[in-house]
Amino acid sequence: MRKSSVLLVGVVLLGLSVGVSSEARGRRHIKRTDDPVRAPLPFSDGVLVGDTLYLAGTIGLDPKTGRAHENLEQEIRLALEGMKETLGEAGMTMDDLVYVQVFSTDLSLFGDFNRIYRSYFKDNFPARAFIGSGPLLLGGRFEIQGIAVKR
Amino acid sequence: MRKSSVLLVGVVLLGLSVGVSSEARGRRHIKRTDDPVRAPLPFSDGVLVGDTLYLAGTIGLDPKTGRAHENLEQEIRLALEGMKETLGEAGMTMDDLVYVQVFSTDLSLFGDFNRIYRSYFKDNFPARAFIGSGPLLLGGRFEIQGIAVKR
Amino acid sequence: MRKSSVLLVGVVLLGLSVGVSSEARGRRHIKRTDDPVRAPLPFSDGVLVGDTLYLAGTIGLDPKTGRAHENLEQEIRLALEGMKETLGEAGMTMDDLVYVQVFSTDLSLFGDFNRIYRSYFKDNFPARAFIGSGPLLLGGRFEIQGIAVKR
Repeated sequence: MRKSSVLLVGVVLLGLSVGVSSEARGRRHIKRTDDPVRAPLPFSDGVLVGDTLYLAGTIGLDPKTGRAHENLEQEIRLALEGMKETLGEAGMTMDDLVYVQVFSTDLSLFGDFNRIYRSYFKDNFPARAFIGSGPLLLGGRFEIQGIAVKR
Repeated sequence: MRKSSVLLVGVVLLGLSVGVSSEARGRRHIKRTDDPVRAPLPFSDGVLVGDTLYLAGTIGLDPKTGRAHENLEQEIRLALEGMKETLGEAGMTMDDLVYVQVFSTDLSLFGDFNRIYRSYFKDNFPARAFIGSGPLLLGGRFEIQGIAVKR
Repeated sequence: MRKSSVLLVGVVLLGLSVGVSSEARGRRHIKRTDDPVRAPLPFSDGVLVGDTLYLAGTIGLDPKTGRAHENLEQEIRLALEGMKETLGEAGMTMDDLVYVQVFSTDLSLFGDFNRIYRSYFKDNFPARAFIGSGPLLLGGRFEIQGIAVKR
């Protein structure tokens, strides 16, 4: 996969992305607007309480189709970029993640996932589980959910 | 499904429900007694630490059969009512949920689940994942687990 | 299964176990070195932030084969011993667990799992879900992840 196409998708996502958030007694609900699922769905992409951010399950959706990107590497990157964007809305980075759950329909993709996942962190990794799941929404091969704490 | 039958089940559940809790160095373990699984099982329905409540996986059990309610809407409501009850024992409501994980044996029920789930919240939704799982205990089509923080 | 063989495996694990941890702005990443998966993999076995420890998914690996122990009871014990070890590195015990997620490829093992799991706790149990999963890494029949808060 060419790096330029990843960048292009990234730019498209940024273009679509307008953080909608609301303050409610000490917590902030973060909603990315680039979810091409079937908005509005009954979840926030992140809920920030104090220093802790709870993230929604994220699938690597192709904004053109509204379904998981058919290219494996793109799908993985789009899922991680989605988390990164939610973290960014809360003033955090991937390195703030502490608890990560990767659900995957296909364990044979473990190596590919790890290779790309690894590149999103500076040094210390979150505690993580990689769980073989049943089918995932929108044709996803991965859905990632987690918790971050601001350093 | 008639609303009255949902209410009836609710009343039955309330009748069965006696919160058993214990204080242990700053935390409180909450056990609903309406779990018709095969009590006593080795889990608390909730553990409250400070302002944070960790909830057990909840299935929409029919108290008459001890298994997941065969009516889909009833099953979903019973699962959510179970969470609500555990939250209530900790002085919280559904709106205090921040992190929710829905495991489901059948992704085609996503729409039905969302329609009912949505009605349990006032405005801002928790971060949530909806994961296709393998088979669930007691014939459940859904098992829901989560974390809440008191507002 | 003979108790002596469990003890032997325990001693082997202890022998292999050298806690590698790093301090990074208020958090500590814990890495057990007895993970016979294909180290180094991109996860910490635990991330400690303040009083809260986030644990990685743990499989009951046989150190001789690097795969899930073929004996069911051994597999369950090894997974729980793995969590216990990570907890120990953070100065905690199993009783500090508050949120536990058990993913299992086979619901018929629920009773066996509970019998052994129960013996790892003094009195009050964590909130827990037991979820039927798809296949798990390294032939695991169980993968356990969780959150603990120091009492």
